[in-house]
Amino acid sequence: MIIHSFAAFKAKQKLKPFSYKRKPLESWDVRIRVTHCGICHSDIHLIDNDWGFSKYPLVPGHEVIGEVVELGKSSKHLKIGMRVGVGWQAGSCMKCVWCKRGDENLCSDSRATCVGNYGGYGEEVQVDSRFAFPIPNRLSSEGAAPLLCGGVTVFSPLERFNVGKGTKVGILGVGGLGHLAVQFAAALGAEVTAFSSHPEKEREVKEMGAQKFVAVSNKSQMKKAEQSLDFLLSTVNARLDWEAYLNLVKKRGTLCFVGAVPGMIQFPVFSLIVGDRNVAGSVIGSRRTIKSMLDFAAKHRIEARAEVSPLSEVNQAIQKVRKGKPRYRMVLDLP
Amino acid sequence: MIIHSFAAFKAKQKLKPFSYKRKPLESWDVRIRVTHCGICHSDIHLIDNDWGFSKYPLVPGHEVIGEVVELGKSSKHLKIGMRVGVGWQAGSCMKCVWCKRGDENLCSDSRATCVGNYGGYGEEVQVDSRFAFPIPNRLSSEGAAPLLCGGVTVFSPLERFNVGKGTKVGILGVGGLGHLAVQFAAALGAEVTAFSSHPEKEREVKEMGAQKFVAVSNKSQMKKAEQSLDFLLSTVNARLDWEAYLNLVKKRGTLCFVGAVPGMIQFPVFSLIVGDRNVAGSVIGSRRTIKSMLDFAAKHRIEARAEVSPLSEVNQAIQKVRKGKPRYRMVLDLP
Repeated sequence: MIIHSFAAFKAKQKLKPFSYKRKPLESWDVRIRVTHCGICHSDIHLIDNDWGFSKYPLVPGHEVIGEVVELGKSSKHLKIGMRVGVGWQAGSCMKCVWCKRGDENLCSDSRATCVGNYGGYGEEVQVDSRFAFPIPNRLSSEGAAPLLCGGVTVFSPLERFNVGKGTKVGILGVGGLGHLAVQFAAALGAEVTAFSSHPEKEREVKEMGAQKFVAVSNKSQMKKAEQSLDFLLSTVNARLDWEAYLNLVKKRGTLCFVGAVPGMIQFPVFSLIVGDRNVAGSVIGSRRTIKSMLDFAAKHRIEARAEVSPLSEVNQAIQKVRKGKPRYRMVLDLP
Repeated sequence: MIIHSFAAFKAKQKLKPFSYKRKPLESWDVRIRVTHCGICHSDIHLIDNDWGFSKYPLVPGHEVIGEVVELGKSSKHLKIGMRVGVGWQAGSCMKCVWCKRGDENLCSDSRATCVGNYGGYGEEVQVDSRFAFPIPNRLSSEGAAPLLCGGVTVFSPLERFNVGKGTKVGILGVGGLGHLAVQFAAALGAEVTAFSSHPEKEREVKEMGAQKFVAVSNKSQMKKAEQSLDFLLSTVNARLDWEAYLNLVKKRGTLCFVGAVPGMIQFPVFSLIVGDRNVAGSVIGSRRTIKSMLDFAAKHRIEARAEVSPLSEVNQAIQKVRKGKPRYRMVLDLP
C-alpha cells in the first residue's frame, strides 16, 4: 500500500508531497494512522542537515499521535484502534546493558522515528510497538503530541535531578520545550523561575506555574537571580554567556542542557570548582520515563499549548517555527 | 613573640625571610609549631598573584603538619603536644547553611590558611582548632602533609561520586594530586586507569594501584579508552581538548575537574546531551571528609610520595615544583 506524506528532498528546502510503499510489518511492529504530529526543532535540524547525517527523501515528524491500525504478532500489549503516541525513538536493541537497565534512550542501536524511517508528517508511521505509548484519555491529541519528544526531554532531567518540593528551579527559554518544563517543574512542587528574552511572555508563563520571571536582558534582574537556583534547565539553542548562567546556580547545583546549542559551550573551570557545581546534558527519556511523564501530565492536566495547522500547510507551519512564532508549539493535524 | 618565616613580597619573585608578630589567640584558635609543609600548586598561584587577590608579604603553605603548642579556651578537643594537620581552610563561619550541613568547604566566609593569614612556610601557624586534625600514628609527617590539601581535594569527589568496587575510574595527570587519586581510587576498589603525558611513570603508577596506563600522546591507546570510564578526575592544570577527554567517559558518566585549568574549558553541547553525561568541579573537602580521608589513608597506608627539602631551601624547592620535577610532591621540613 502507498503512504502519502511530505518529505524534504534536499537540505534547507521546502517539503514536497512524497508517496512511499509501506514496509513489511515485523513481529514487534505497530502501524499507526497519524492524526497529529508536532513540529520539533530537531525536525528542522534534520530537514536542513545541520547534523550532517540526513538522508533524502526525509519525512520528518517524531511527536506523533495516532490510532493503531495493525500489529505484528508479538505486539500484544496494544490493541487495534488504541490512541497511542510515538516520540523520537522508534526502537532499540533491547539487549544491551542500557536497554536491560531500562535506559533505552541510551542504547547505541537506538532507531529514530524519522531518521532511516519515514516519520509522522504523513498518513502513517511504523515503529517498534514497545515505543508506542497509550495516551491517557484526559489529554487532547494536539496537546499531547509535543509531550512525546519535547515533554519527555524536559521531564527526564527534572526527574533525574530530583526536582520537587523545596527545589528552586530555573527554566531558561520558554518556547516549545521550556513552556512544558515550567509546567512540569511547578507541578512537581518546585519554585520555578523562568528566564526568557521575551518579556511579553511573563503573564502567560506565570499562569503556567512560574513564580518568578527574569528578562535575561535585564541586568539587575539577572544580578538578583545569581546563585539562587538548585537546578537550571537550558532549553535554548542559542550561544550564550554560559559563565553567567552557571552563576545563577547555587553551590552543588546543576546547569543541565537539553537544547541544541550550536558551537562550543564554555566557561572557566573555577565556575565549576568553587562551589562543587555541575554541568550536565540529557537526551530524550526512557520508556519508563515516557510512561510516567504521560501519567503525570494527565494527572496534572499538563499539555502543550499548541497552534494547530493542517499537514497540507506544513511549509507555512515550519516557517513559523523557524521564526519562533508559535505560542508555544506547532502541531500538524491530519483530519 | 616573633615568628620567622619565608614570604613573597611581590608577584613572581623569590621568597625572602620574613618575621612577624604572632596575633592574639582567640577562643577557638590553635597555635601549631610547624614541622612539615607541602608545596601545592596553589601556593605558586598565590605567590605569582595568578588569581588577582594576593596580598604581600604573603607566607604560603597550606599543607601543614605540626605540633599543638597553645590552645584557645574553647579548643578542648585537641591537646598540647598533639600532632595535627591543617589544609587550605583555616576557619569558616560555622553558622551558614553549608557549615550546618557539614559542608564547611562551601562556606562563603571560609578563611584560608595562607590568604589573609600567615601560612605554613614558617615556624608556626595559627588557625581555628576545628580545622586542625589529629594525624593517625601510622602516617609519616612528610607523607601526610600533602594529604591535607592535595589528598582531600581528590578524595572528596571520589567519595561524592560513589567511586568504589565496580567503578571504572580514570585519573588524568599523575603529579601531586594525581598520584594520591590513583592510590585512593584503587584502595576504594575501583579499576583505575591513569592518563599521563609522562610514559616513564607507568611502572610506578601501576605500583600505586593503577591497572591501566594510557600515554595521552598515544592516539591508539586513547582511542581504545573511549567511553570506558564511569568517572574521570582531571588533576591537570593545562589547556586540553576537553571534548576528547569527555569522550573517555561512558554514558551517564562524569568528568570532574579539581585542577586549575587556565582559560576556558569548552566542548560541544552534544558531548553532554548524547549519553546524559556530566561535567563537575570539586573544591577541597569538608571537615568530615578530611577526617575520613585521614582514617582511610592510615588504614590503607596511603601517603604522598614526597621529596623533602629544608625550609631554608624553599626557593630551590619551589623552582623544582614549577618545573614539575618532584616525584610526586615536594614537602618542606623545619627540623
